[in-house]
Amino acid sequence: MIHKEQEKENESLTMDNLNPYILGVSDAVRGPTVVRAVEIEQQLKNNFNQFPFNRVIRANIGDPHASFNQSPITYIRQFVAGCTYPPLMDMSDFPIDIKQRVERLLNACSGKSLGSYTESQGIVTVREDIANYIECRDDYPANPNNIYLCNGATEGIRLVLKLLMNNNQNKPSGIMIPIPQYSLYSDTLSLYGAYQIRYYLDEDNNWALNLNELQRAFDEAKEYCIPRGIVIINPGNPTGQVLSSENIKMVIQFAYKHKLFILADEVYQENIYFTDSKFYSFKKIMMDLGLPYNQMQMASFHSASKGWHGECGSRGGYYELINLSKEVRIQVNKLVSASICSTAWGQVIMNAIINPPKKGEPSYELYEKERSDVLNRLKEKANLITDLFNSVEGVHCNRVMGSMYAFPRIDLPEKAIEYTKSLNMTPDTFYCFQLLEKTGICVVPGSGFKQQPNTYHFRITILSPTDEIKQIVDQFRTFHKSFLREWK
Amino acid sequence: MIHKEQEKENESLTMDNLNPYILGVSDAVRGPTVVRAVEIEQQLKNNFNQFPFNRVIRANIGDPHASFNQSPITYIRQFVAGCTYPPLMDMSDFPIDIKQRVERLLNACSGKSLGSYTESQGIVTVREDIANYIECRDDYPANPNNIYLCNGATEGIRLVLKLLMNNNQNKPSGIMIPIPQYSLYSDTLSLYGAYQIRYYLDEDNNWALNLNELQRAFDEAKEYCIPRGIVIINPGNPTGQVLSSENIKMVIQFAYKHKLFILADEVYQENIYFTDSKFYSFKKIMMDLGLPYNQMQMASFHSASKGWHGECGSRGGYYELINLSKEVRIQVNKLVSASICSTAWGQVIMNAIINPPKKGEPSYELYEKERSDVLNRLKEKANLITDLFNSVEGVHCNRVMGSMYAFPRIDLPEKAIEYTKSLNMTPDTFYCFQLLEKTGICVVPGSGFKQQPNTYHFRITILSPTDEIKQIVDQFRTFHKSFLREWK
Ligand SMILES: Cc1ncc(COP(=O)(O)O)c(C=O)c1O
Ligand SMILES: Cc1ncc(COP(=O)(O)O)c(C=O)c1O
Repeated sequence: MIHKEQEKENESLTMDNLNPYILGVSDAVRGPTVVRAVEIEQQLKNNFNQFPFNRVIRANIGDPHASFNQSPITYIRQFVAGCTYPPLMDMSDFPIDIKQRVERLLNACSGKSLGSYTESQGIVTVREDIANYIECRDDYPANPNNIYLCNGATEGIRLVLKLLMNNNQNKPSGIMIPIPQYSLYSDTLSLYGAYQIRYYLDEDNNWALNLNELQRAFDEAKEYCIPRGIVIINPGNPTGQVLSSENIKMVIQFAYKHKLFILADEVYQENIYFTDSKFYSFKKIMMDLGLPYNQMQMASFHSASKGWHGECGSRGGYYELINLSKEVRIQVNKLVSASICSTAWGQVIMNAIINPPKKGEPSYELYEKERSDVLNRLKEKANLITDLFNSVEGVHCNRVMGSMYAFPRIDLPEKAIEYTKSLNMTPDTFYCFQLLEKTGICVVPGSGFKQQPNTYHFRITILSPTDEIKQIVDQFRTFHKSFLREWK
Repeated sequence: MIHKEQEKENESLTMDNLNPYILGVSDAVRGPTVVRAVEIEQQLKNNFNQFPFNRVIRANIGDPHASFNQSPITYIRQFVAGCTYPPLMDMSDFPIDIKQRVERLLNACSGKSLGSYTESQGIVTVREDIANYIECRDDYPANPNNIYLCNGATEGIRLVLKLLMNNNQNKPSGIMIPIPQYSLYSDTLSLYGAYQIRYYLDEDNNWALNLNELQRAFDEAKEYCIPRGIVIINPGNPTGQVLSSENIKMVIQFAYKHKLFILADEVYQENIYFTDSKFYSFKKIMMDLGLPYNQMQMASFHSASKGWHGECGSRGGYYELINLSKEVRIQVNKLVSASICSTAWGQVIMNAIINPPKKGEPSYELYEKERSDVLNRLKEKANLITDLFNSVEGVHCNRVMGSMYAFPRIDLPEKAIEYTKSLNMTPDTFYCFQLLEKTGICVVPGSGFKQQPNTYHFRITILSPTDEIKQIVDQFRTFHKSFLREWK
């Protein structure tokens, strides 16, 4: 017993002395509904089925290979396997363009091995290919020295936010973030002790950004923080919107006026479904605007996790930093080199993605087929899911123009809302738990991304196979009706 | 011109408003001598040779595949290639045990693809294998739930240090770090605004830790910070020492007395060369000590980068967290899940390393041969380099017992020391620059790792081929003599 007390007394890490900022971190996308989903899956596995369904549908995370068994793209995997184990180039019947690419890539690695640390910013050849990709996309030059490979866009976003943290003045740094937003942003700002300047996306206007709302958020926050940057997620997560060039122009001009560093989260740039939508990068619009806007500082993030290939596990990603002064660049490079480098395998996968086989190369045809298959299915499903949700009474869903998600708004009965107060749970969380228990469909409550007060949403991926999507929405429709009935 | 001024005025990220903590980050291992080395390499490549040598010897970084073209271990790469591109299991003549391992690993991944995000802590099967590895190593149980995969030990170390940061009181958190040390620690603490409690390793006692010195450092620091943790690097970087079990016991008791969280950096645990040395993990000694010590909180770090295999580019790594309370664990897991997960490829490589082929399995023989070849060569070189350096006048080098480095002390002439003051450069940096310009040998000055005032060292890897090591030390001997002559 004495020992037991002594222990407690001698604990070096306790809830009392843990870094207090960690308490503010949420875990929206992998949070309590997902924990419950895993429990249920376990029970189903053990044949202990007291549920009215026989499998959990993981529609909570944008992870194409995971729950829906989308196959990896052959070209990407052959290239990576070849770089991993070069003797395959002799042993296998990989196409000749794969072999050439493997050779070129390995020649760019120290000791011709992915097992070496790379340059801190990333393998030069990979950065050159990325610069080339950006140039083709935007029609403006890109400099490989401005490109930084990272462990998922996540790491890059964290690092760039870190640059802007200057909390030693009498006010913390403030960053404007969209609401709803991908929770990485609010979590990282909590962890950094920064101020979240929350601006609402305009749901009635297809989740566009609104100048008055930006100005309101900025003005209200000025008292509490020093505004330093603005985050835009385009195409949107969880909202699925794709911003128009006019909207982007407005945001750039707003950022210029208020000296805000732009963080353009463009990880879904290849996920565009709606025929009237087109992806415009923030960089391109900035350049189009000419002086003085084309001199603004900004970061653009991209990832290997999304697109049609969905190589989430690789944690490949990059960011482009634009218009930093030489002095600041030196500091950034120092910070980057303190982490040595990002994973070489992730860099190679990122490379494969932004530098696909060209017409006439042996790998091209299969690649094109696999790519268009996935992309066409995604387009079909984006449209289907929008229409289906809008056909349910009490549900409104903006068109899924891009990314991987629908974010329908649900009208919840007052009685249910009242009841959840007693549970110390948000109404949408309660709703999503019920949905899971009754149907096996696992989605993320809107409160995980934040939302306008007194509105309720959930985020659901569009990744399930087409016929399953119909089933899912049918099950949802039945559930929603009975929920409304129950809480009338 | 107006535009130009406007720009400056409207810059959102400048040296004046950059996160001030970044200024404190160094870049020892990839710093100015390395930048110069790259310049020289470029000039040599362009046949513009005004140097008395024709290649740069990169002895600055512990990266086996890089400069010295050590081949990857066949077993590891076949396993990873198979997991990357499963059709290889039919196409190739990979041994059957590789195929079985690939199947087992992919079955543990969502959607049977490395392209899925893994569980935030890491793939369960990988964590089980790691727990098993630790159990075999220490003869004490290990729990897969205490294991966290990370992007290189680097990421894990940063995260654990983050847990201990509680700077909101009137004093910052303080962490005890060895001097000399791997600069990741001082850099991370600078970035976090924490206090570095520097304790000196005892060079006259084979770089062991000394109780009086620990106590001195602790007592002096108490005024300026709240001491929270202690870092030990064993085997040592840059020092190459391997701690005795008695020394470790002393440290654990010291940490217990002062409620310090133990961070045991054990990434070189497989790099033991000196026949009288043995690796003891901090966990094992803590458990041996019994109550109350076996209840202490600590983290142990391991990496795929080191050992004999040297898979640095994978950024595979893990840490084991011991004896955390359930509440704290929940917070840690939340923080970990905010980064989603570490690279699946890095996890697979870590898995291959800690779960090698067993006797009787088809891959075993080649694996054993490759392993013992590299390890025997490392042993030979560790001894050779120690003896060679000690044969140079004015140089003293402790025995390289483990890790990948020698850290010889050099007596520098007063005149040289005086001169470098005028250059605003540390004497050892000046010395290392001269060594590079005269011989092409690139090493890291001791000041990059910090050292006792008025002592001078450099760190050199033991990775070069054996006959090259003789040449290197010969060149060094000639250089050192002429340096002493020049500055007499
Ligand atoms: C908007 C957004 N940004 C960044 C990320 C992080 O992606 P990565 O896997 O590259 O870290 C995600 C992942 O879902 C995302 O949705
Ligand atoms: C002592 C020590 N710890 C940690 C690391 C980081 O290793 P990695 O991040 O590659 O796993 C290194 C790398 O050299 C090291 O020497």
